[in-house]
Amino acid sequence: MSKEYPSALFERAVGEFSKLPGVGRKTATRLVLHMLRQQEQDVENFAEALTRLKKDVKYCIYCHGISDTEVCPICANPLRDHSTVCVVENIQDIIAVENTMQFKGVYHVLGGVISPMDGISPGDLQIESLVARVAEGNVKEVILALSPTMEGDTTNFYIFRKLADSNVKLSVIARGISVGDELEYTDEVTLGRSIVNRTPFTGKSY
Amino acid sequence: MSKEYPSALFERAVGEFSKLPGVGRKTATRLVLHMLRQQEQDVENFAEALTRLKKDVKYCIYCHGISDTEVCPICANPLRDHSTVCVVENIQDIIAVENTMQFKGVYHVLGGVISPMDGISPGDLQIESLVARVAEGNVKEVILALSPTMEGDTTNFYIFRKLADSNVKLSVIARGISVGDELEYTDEVTLGRSIVNRTPFTGKSY
Repeated sequence: MSKEYPSALFERAVGEFSKLPGVGRKTATRLVLHMLRQQEQDVENFAEALTRLKKDVKYCIYCHGISDTEVCPICANPLRDHSTVCVVENIQDIIAVENTMQFKGVYHVLGGVISPMDGISPGDLQIESLVARVAEGNVKEVILALSPTMEGDTTNFYIFRKLADSNVKLSVIARGISVGDELEYTDEVTLGRSIVNRTPFTGKSY
Repeated sequence: MSKEYPSALFERAVGEFSKLPGVGRKTATRLVLHMLRQQEQDVENFAEALTRLKKDVKYCIYCHGISDTEVCPICANPLRDHSTVCVVENIQDIIAVENTMQFKGVYHVLGGVISPMDGISPGDLQIESLVARVAEGNVKEVILALSPTMEGDTTNFYIFRKLADSNVKLSVIARGISVGDELEYTDEVTLGRSIVNRTPFTGKSY
């Protein structure tokens, strides 16, 4: 005995959703049924958002982050401090830093970190363009905000060597125990670093 | 200090993905970045699959399941046994039963189960159309394949009462311990039923 499916359109939509990372056939079926329950206009909006994203999104000529225009709104904003450049791996990290509302400089998106295991070498990243940007002379400080992993550290060190000849100030975001974390459960490397890199107590809480 | 986002197109796509059930902003961002890495043609295919699904999908005039045509391929298949109707809650259940390759009859999709808590009354379900289908006289057996929940049982009983005057055979799918389950961890209601409804041992394993 064989099996039959009632709708090829349905199967096709399930197949497309199944291609998304972390989405299996069961979840895909659930998402497609959700879509079927929506208004036609809402489904159109969803589909249009995707096609327009892929068609119209650009990469900012300065920071290499995604943008709707040639220069992204952050790089184009005269109120931001263009002499402070925060180096991040990807666009999510820009959003994460923006969400803190603690940074008023500009960004530089590397597009990843150096990882020989994944075949990512410095040439695959926007490192040369960072060096060129610094060489122009308007950048006073470069803040390295990469992941605290071996690959992140390697990339930090590579950039440090590349910028050694320039007189730009190079800093790295603080590593220490997270706000709300229990000291008892913090790993020893992080806890050790947070003691070594202790900061003066100002009487303020965070 | 305020926050800025580099791309409105990106934000819009993230917003659309966030509307999906079980998808938060972080997952939505991950999915949108995945989409950005795909070929333009693949994104178009995804979008088209969704819009075509919503525009072109129909409900089969016989079983009320979704279909690409007025009559779904299962109801239109002359090789299937049109005298045996399996009553299911929704389209996923048709797919689940088809995947077993153990059923060669046709289906009837109720569109849910009676649930006063969720405001679903018999009138919201395809029960009258089931009664009408049976009244035509060609159906010999109705198999109730609803979820083994209070709502499913209520719906089973409602259908039983509605079909009491017809001389159709009414059956319910077997409930018992699942294949591969440990007896020790089976709940007592299921285990009790599986003893009451024991079947003759034929020497075959499943």
